[in-house]
Amino acid sequence: MLIGGIEAGGTKIVCAVGTTPNNIEAKTTFPTKSPSETLLEIKRFFSRYELNSIGVGSFGPIDLDKSSKTYGKILNTPKLNWRNYNLLEQLKEDYSIPVYINTDVNIACLSEYYQGAGKNVNSCLYITIGTGIGAGFVKNGEIYQGTSHPEMGHIYIPKHPKDSFNGSCPYHKSCLEGLGSGTSIKKRHGKTGEDLTKEGFVWELESYYLAHAIVNYSFILSPERIILGGGVMKQNNLYPLIRKKVSCLINNYVNNVNDMENFIMPPVLNDEQGVKGAIQLAINQREREGKSHLKHKTKQYF
Amino acid sequence: MLIGGIEAGGTKIVCAVGTTPNNIEAKTTFPTKSPSETLLEIKRFFSRYELNSIGVGSFGPIDLDKSSKTYGKILNTPKLNWRNYNLLEQLKEDYSIPVYINTDVNIACLSEYYQGAGKNVNSCLYITIGTGIGAGFVKNGEIYQGTSHPEMGHIYIPKHPKDSFNGSCPYHKSCLEGLGSGTSIKKRHGKTGEDLTKEGFVWELESYYLAHAIVNYSFILSPERIILGGGVMKQNNLYPLIRKKVSCLINNYVNNVNDMENFIMPPVLNDEQGVKGAIQLAINQREREGKSHLKHKTKQYF
Repeated sequence: MLIGGIEAGGTKIVCAVGTTPNNIEAKTTFPTKSPSETLLEIKRFFSRYELNSIGVGSFGPIDLDKSSKTYGKILNTPKLNWRNYNLLEQLKEDYSIPVYINTDVNIACLSEYYQGAGKNVNSCLYITIGTGIGAGFVKNGEIYQGTSHPEMGHIYIPKHPKDSFNGSCPYHKSCLEGLGSGTSIKKRHGKTGEDLTKEGFVWELESYYLAHAIVNYSFILSPERIILGGGVMKQNNLYPLIRKKVSCLINNYVNNVNDMENFIMPPVLNDEQGVKGAIQLAINQREREGKSHLKHKTKQYF
Repeated sequence: MLIGGIEAGGTKIVCAVGTTPNNIEAKTTFPTKSPSETLLEIKRFFSRYELNSIGVGSFGPIDLDKSSKTYGKILNTPKLNWRNYNLLEQLKEDYSIPVYINTDVNIACLSEYYQGAGKNVNSCLYITIGTGIGAGFVKNGEIYQGTSHPEMGHIYIPKHPKDSFNGSCPYHKSCLEGLGSGTSIKKRHGKTGEDLTKEGFVWELESYYLAHAIVNYSFILSPERIILGGGVMKQNNLYPLIRKKVSCLINNYVNNVNDMENFIMPPVLNDEQGVKGAIQLAINQREREGKSHLKHKTKQYF
């Protein structure tokens, strides 16, 4: 039996079917259109296979509170025709099999944890630095979830003393996303990161903001590994700059992050990160449900 | 059968025995001396009772990595005669019953979660703002623990534009503890918080730093409630100042923290917070071990 994986991004959708994340039988990619057009495309692809469950990693924000009436709904996204659309409910209606959903960044983290740069550790934080900044955290195979899914990209960090830019976040101005996202780079310098590769000051600022955020995540979550992905991190010289700054900022205060090369790493999975994670989500959730089913059964015998 | 609870603070030790945190039979308090003198005092008190387990909430930092050789050891504390002392091992040697240890702030959080201001929520963060700043996080009854215990008091937050003080943290200068602890108030203003109750600027700065930290914790952990304790929070007018600033800084970005009165609260437990939490720790750990024992047994029947 096959598992369906959907990576629902703001600009493109990737669908795949496989028995495990490492055994993908077929895959397709198409642009994100309206919800109904997109669902039709998904159906067209999946109709060729017999699926036992579907996992979805979606752009957000999504309501992930299982006790909520709007569980699975995409909330106040700038993509207006997707706002308040319940992707989870629609998929459940279309297929009578279990469907599981989580945010794109949480799914990317899950994927790296099982198959990628987090394979040999017990906990990893995955941060994506692109148009926006988001992060997901997986510990002992579980995606971290509080009362809502974290919004780690919006934490407040100290302003670089030589940065006169006020920040680009429409909600918080100078939060991490407002000062360190690809959008902020473009607004501050008038060019994208790709056109600024040799401008030292650009990367001094970028590594300054990311390093402060990484130290904060570390002092709060104490992850074993931090994986940095997304468009901005294509600038490879950022890694050594960030590692050096993180080390200075921690200043030997905690002794669980001595080896910076092993602590801060690039992702390993590329194009298939999302769908692999979506398939992994379905596997994990089914296993969990199976276990709780077993527990229930076991109880009857005692 | 009774459970022993020990709150091991830097200046005083509180010991108690009880069947539950709410049913304490006897309690004693004495000053923290050298490890051997202190252990003697603890023995003297406990010798009168038959205990089935002991829970300890201790000043730190403590090695809480169960796979580590130095598990239970007090690490680089400024209290030199306690440095590298393994309180857990010593207690296990003295009593042949299960002994469990965690940090003082984690234990305080556990206590408030079960008996205090976190009683009716699924997750709470307890922050203590005193000489230093520390925080513990409990979710679904479990103390949060990463590769090491968190050091949330040392996160980096933006500097208030009118604050010319460089910060008092010996490791990080202007981290949260360096800018917002009781120590930093005294160094910045030359007086303790108690003597500055009417100085508006002092509390403007204090609430500014705490609010930024609270927003960061919220965006990362997404707790249902935040409890603020410790000496500095005796200044009651801080609560409304902090709530207002947190609300402004979040700026409706997440919809799980609308009711600030219910989100940010003072602790409920006073003097017995530590020992109650220590007894709770022992109860929880024993229950967990009992369950894993049962699981093991169950397996044999299948």
